Amino acid sequence: MSLRPTLDFLLYDWLDAESLNQRERFADHSRETFDAVLDTCERIAREKYAPFNRTVDTQEPHFDGEKVVLPQATHDAHKAFVESGMMSAAQDYDIGGMQLPYTLQAAANSFFAMASVSIGSNMLTSGNANLLMVHGTEMQKEVFAKNEFSGRWAGTMCLSEPQAGSSLSDVATRAVPDGDDFQNDPLGPRYRLTGNKMWISAGDHELTENIVHIVLAKIPDENGRLVPGTRGISLFIVPKRMVDTQGNLTGQRNDVALAGLNHKLGWRGTTNTLLNFGEGKYPVDGKAGAVGYLVGEPGKGLHCMFHMMNEARIGVGTAATMLGMAGYHASLEYAKSRPQGRLVKKPEAAGTAVAKDSAAPQVRIIEHADVRRMLLAQKAYCEGALALELYCARLVDEQKTGDAQAADDARLLLEVLTPIAKSWPSEWCLEANSLAIQVHGGYGYTRDFPVEQYWRDNRLNMIHEGTHGIQAADLLGRKVLMEKGRGLQLLAARMTGTIGRAAKVPALAGHAKALGAALQRIGSATEAAWSTGDPADALANAVPYMQAFGHTVLAWIWLDVAGKALQTDAEKARAVTAGKIGATDYFFHYELPKIGAWLNVVETRDPTCTALPEDAF
Amino acid sequence: MSLRPTLDFLLYDWLDAESLNQRERFADHSRETFDAVLDTCERIAREKYAPFNRTVDTQEPHFDGEKVVLPQATHDAHKAFVESGMMSAAQDYDIGGMQLPYTLQAAANSFFAMASVSIGSNMLTSGNANLLMVHGTEMQKEVFAKNEFSGRWAGTMCLSEPQAGSSLSDVATRAVPDGDDFQNDPLGPRYRLTGNKMWISAGDHELTENIVHIVLAKIPDENGRLVPGTRGISLFIVPKRMVDTQGNLTGQRNDVALAGLNHKLGWRGTTNTLLNFGEGKYPVDGKAGAVGYLVGEPGKGLHCMFHMMNEARIGVGTAATMLGMAGYHASLEYAKSRPQGRLVKKPEAAGTAVAKDSAAPQVRIIEHADVRRMLLAQKAYCEGALALELYCARLVDEQKTGDAQAADDARLLLEVLTPIAKSWPSEWCLEANSLAIQVHGGYGYTRDFPVEQYWRDNRLNMIHEGTHGIQAADLLGRKVLMEKGRGLQLLAARMTGTIGRAAKVPALAGHAKALGAALQRIGSATEAAWSTGDPADALANAVPYMQAFGHTVLAWIWLDVAGKALQTDAEKARAVTAGKIGATDYFFHYELPKIGAWLNVVETRDPTCTALPEDAF
Repeated sequence: MSLRPTLDFLLYDWLDAESLNQRERFADHSRETFDAVLDTCERIAREKYAPFNRTVDTQEPHFDGEKVVLPQATHDAHKAFVESGMMSAAQDYDIGGMQLPYTLQAAANSFFAMASVSIGSNMLTSGNANLLMVHGTEMQKEVFAKNEFSGRWAGTMCLSEPQAGSSLSDVATRAVPDGDDFQNDPLGPRYRLTGNKMWISAGDHELTENIVHIVLAKIPDENGRLVPGTRGISLFIVPKRMVDTQGNLTGQRNDVALAGLNHKLGWRGTTNTLLNFGEGKYPVDGKAGAVGYLVGEPGKGLHCMFHMMNEARIGVGTAATMLGMAGYHASLEYAKSRPQGRLVKKPEAAGTAVAKDSAAPQVRIIEHADVRRMLLAQKAYCEGALALELYCARLVDEQKTGDAQAADDARLLLEVLTPIAKSWPSEWCLEANSLAIQVHGGYGYTRDFPVEQYWRDNRLNMIHEGTHGIQAADLLGRKVLMEKGRGLQLLAARMTGTIGRAAKVPALAGHAKALGAALQRIGSATEAAWSTGDPADALANAVPYMQAFGHTVLAWIWLDVAGKALQTDAEKARAVTAGKIGATDYFFHYELPKIGAWLNVVETRDPTCTALPEDAF
Repeated sequence: MSLRPTLDFLLYDWLDAESLNQRERFADHSRETFDAVLDTCERIAREKYAPFNRTVDTQEPHFDGEKVVLPQATHDAHKAFVESGMMSAAQDYDIGGMQLPYTLQAAANSFFAMASVSIGSNMLTSGNANLLMVHGTEMQKEVFAKNEFSGRWAGTMCLSEPQAGSSLSDVATRAVPDGDDFQNDPLGPRYRLTGNKMWISAGDHELTENIVHIVLAKIPDENGRLVPGTRGISLFIVPKRMVDTQGNLTGQRNDVALAGLNHKLGWRGTTNTLLNFGEGKYPVDGKAGAVGYLVGEPGKGLHCMFHMMNEARIGVGTAATMLGMAGYHASLEYAKSRPQGRLVKKPEAAGTAVAKDSAAPQVRIIEHADVRRMLLAQKAYCEGALALELYCARLVDEQKTGDAQAADDARLLLEVLTPIAKSWPSEWCLEANSLAIQVHGGYGYTRDFPVEQYWRDNRLNMIHEGTHGIQAADLLGRKVLMEKGRGLQLLAARMTGTIGRAAKVPALAGHAKALGAALQRIGSATEAAWSTGDPADALANAVPYMQAFGHTVLAWIWLDVAGKALQTDAEKARAVTAGKIGATDYFFHYELPKIGAWLNVVETRDPTCTALPEDAF
């Protein structure tokens, strides 16, 4: 089965992506060019990614003493992706891009995530280059960003260190000026970096001739001390191999050494590395220390990095979503073809409650109520999450190309929605993968079927790019408060709009009422959480708050999607609309009521967990 | 950290296991003999199981063309287990057992499940032998069961087939009388079996000199047809190698061939096999067909098998529980030692809601509210589940050695509680394992830490020995109805007793009230589900029903445990009691309220999933 009908409905019917073509930046585009991009990506994903998803899981990257070895399939997939032009799809024409809306780029990338989430690490490269396009000098854009967009070089983001994972303020990598003329290097102020970076995805490989690391480090003060906290963090470009101003390799290695490959539960197609910067293994000009070129102002590194964070987190949410979708499609196909058991029927004689006709042939398992429940849950989780991710992508386009007010609203809405776009699919599309295993029964527990790998791959998403706990603290500790709560008000206004429209539709009126009540409760829970003014009280149950917030957002998304589906019924197949309404009914009947349990503890600022003495655990 | 304090409290303080010694069968036992058994098992698990848990995961069983190869550690662990006498611990003295209560045996086995759940398949061997002790002839007990209890031979249970997984009525393995004198074989009526058996754990290996398969098969009628349904199923002993009446190997292989090893997501220490019976690879006396000896009456095979089902399902529940516990202990240790981040504090200046002192040293992550929530959830899930499993084990002892009324009550309570004892830990201790990964952050996603393996291993438990869906249909379709609902009434009476006692304790009175309301709602939901009398309506939401039922049972277990903990406070460490009360508070505040969402759909017999047209998925 194909993802396309779902994607087309969300993009064109629901989000009206075609209307973006009325904007100057996208004026050359049309439904036809959008479809051509989707077609190309769907084909590449089908031919170069999907067939090798198990290959990259079993042929884990290894270091042969000299270089990191990846399966040939990974090289081929990378080549096909680069040749498609997708790496720079959203960039300006004049640097070789196609000025594609981000909404379309996100939709197109979903094919790759669904086919083999870990085979490519392209998101990091384009994220890295995007950052340089905003914060880099003209020379840095020319030499580094453009060579990344062309696929000639790859990029990484080097944030974490062994002692500084979630706590970036504890970054201990040092950057000291490289000589008296360090300010005069044409590639940017030149420093020497020393330190260890952990969890660096795609930190070493031979897919490209060079790797452009973007590294968080601290410049010591005059006493040689590092400034505590995030204020002291600066950003540096540290290429794996030294380059000149023409973008040619000089032939010299930079002092960046692979210290180890992490061996993971899943997501094995992408290397994950510990990198040593400046340990002296590869001295540059006879001197230890990795050469790094400052990006932006000293001490503003995290600010520059956060510029990219929303898109990176939407990317993680999309990856989680598409892993869930892959499992949903696999288990749906299985349920349609696997015969097992018979339906219960009303017994003619009293006494026994359940009867089956054991002489009848077995039915396919999609006929069993509990299998249908597991399939519909997956559909509601994954298609709902995809709608949310595309909605957020559409906000990114609005932020970039909308009028001033719309752009500012989009910016603030994105601030509030991004923690949900990242965390919700990470949790619930992982649950979807578990249900996909369950639908397969014993077969799902074997490596002969793809679903166990989806589940393993997806477990990463609650951890990287800010853990679940970090997202929750960001949402309740920062996002719903910022600008005096205006982000939350904007979101409530959009939900209220949907509620108003749905209230007029008989099939949705009950759901509209339920969403209204949920929204009101989120508002009062937010107030109750902060009623003492003490963040320790408010954030004691930040994750349950985020779970309830997320379920409310998804209920809104489904209600809005269902409203649109009913409107477009005449043009569309009956089954598509029935599916959207079924998933919406499922979400409102089975899922939204869960928020009560989560908000109970938020509203009371429940201290059970924080108050327990440590020796009582 | 040790499991012992938790186990000791549950066994001795809560379940008063010592009082079993007043019964004739256990009269030679004392707290000292019980403790000696626990000490021995704890030691063997620590020395022979735990250090090799990763070994059996990475050195997956393989077939070398002649035999199945397992790591040496598995042989050593098996030897140590056999030498401990635990295989026959519950058996009579006169066959070499130690007449240990099942409660103690279950407690002792929990050490092995926690140390390495898949290294041993001893539960299958003792389950197999126990079945023969009840349904076998004297000769079958002597030749087969005793050689299993001694550890000389191992046992399996061969139920499923490729086309008959959950649907045992579709078993197609045929058993035909072997010659005219088939009735006269001293080992039992002799048949020849042909068919394929799937998912056979420990189906082939060289740990023992022989393997005793217990096989479900059908005896064709006079027209050569198999009786449809479960009524046609008979039970056979099919040894891997032929034996004589003295229990000596005759030197001849039986016609049972390994057709394949299943390659699993986890639980890799135990082989899981596809076996071909009677394909002619190993003809016996020149003839194809696996020789099998009938156990019990023809056509009563499933009845005999179900005799063992409760204990097998308690065993699965215990395995799930102890995997959860292993992750809890690992993540608790990690959280106590890993420094990361700082606590939020109330800002002195207005404007920003959250402040941190970034110059202060990092705190250990157990100080963070969300990490504490994840730890306390694990504790509530896993220690609560362990209490439930031991409670069920205690019922098994009551059923076997209590007076007539108590024994009958225990039997019926077990019928109702077994689906929960199997399903609840399979779901929630798996969730605990996911939280253990989350506490570890990125490290938890690597294979350098044990938690990812616990999570993979635990995923099996919702599938084998009756899937989640099967357990739910059993609970709502059979168990709460049987004997006019007397099982549910008995359970309600026990809960009401706990509620009455807890209502008098100020710290627990609120929980007592909440449990009373939950119990009442379970009762009315059960009635509402069945109000149309149509099982298709009632069972449409059987799994949400089971989830709510399970959470209510666990709330009761915790309330009862908490009441006992407060009583024994004077003798016990303050921390132990605080831990039990904290976990109880957690369960009532964070978990029990979830039943509302689950029961909503049960009460309305929600048809969303069953009504959706197949093409709308």
